[in-house]
Amino acid sequence: MKIIRTEDLRGTDREVVSPGGWTSVRWLLKSDGMGFSFHETTFPPGLEFDMWYKNHFEAVFCYKGEGTLVNRDTGEEHKIEPGTVYALDKHDRHTLKAKTEMKLVCSFWPPVTGREMHDEDGAYTLVED
Amino acid sequence: MKIIRTEDLRGTDREVVSPGGWTSVRWLLKSDGMGFSFHETTFPPGLEFDMWYKNHFEAVFCYKGEGTLVNRDTGEEHKIEPGTVYALDKHDRHTLKAKTEMKLVCSFWPPVTGREMHDEDGAYTLVED
Repeated sequence: MKIIRTEDLRGTDREVVSPGGWTSVRWLLKSDGMGFSFHETTFPPGLEFDMWYKNHFEAVFCYKGEGTLVNRDTGEEHKIEPGTVYALDKHDRHTLKAKTEMKLVCSFWPPVTGREMHDEDGAYTLVED
Repeated sequence: MKIIRTEDLRGTDREVVSPGGWTSVRWLLKSDGMGFSFHETTFPPGLEFDMWYKNHFEAVFCYKGEGTLVNRDTGEEHKIEPGTVYALDKHDRHTLKAKTEMKLVCSFWPPVTGREMHDEDGAYTLVED
């Protein structure tokens, strides 16, 4: 059993502060051996960010804040608010736009190692051990 | 891309109301093909419940409420509050005690089918397709 307190990860290599403006705290990574990775992402108000996880499936639960998710493959827009989950089950190209500060709980499969970078497409590269 | 609104799952077969007192909304199950399942569990104030996921790893993030997690293998107790994650990476036998209503975001690997029952040990059985 592991107990992980978000505040204890601030300023460690488990907290990634993106030049793009979002912050990602990685509670559980591939090295934790859970079969998935588990993160909290914070989007500040006004941030719009393009993503495309070509190599992963991701599910995201919003528990705070409000924004819009754009499916760049279809042009559809969806309101995201507390209680909403979105699942990127087709490696969908997407843009998240935060109206207010958003707090998002994210699971990835396969699990993220923590050493991926967003490439030019906004995707996480796959990292081999 | 799937957009799932928690309130839309109330009263459907994706909401399980346990005789034990907890409620589990299953946003994503094995059939969703994400590689993990993704749930929200609500514990009412005062509920104590024994669990033992012999066949799964589970990670849990608390975003509301307060309680105590007991590791029944070691006797250790941990305060659970907003911002805390616990990871059952050793199939740990555990008891969750809610002081106030707790809202928990849960990921399971392998993914839960939704047809598992808690057996006499508090474990989810493995269900084959």
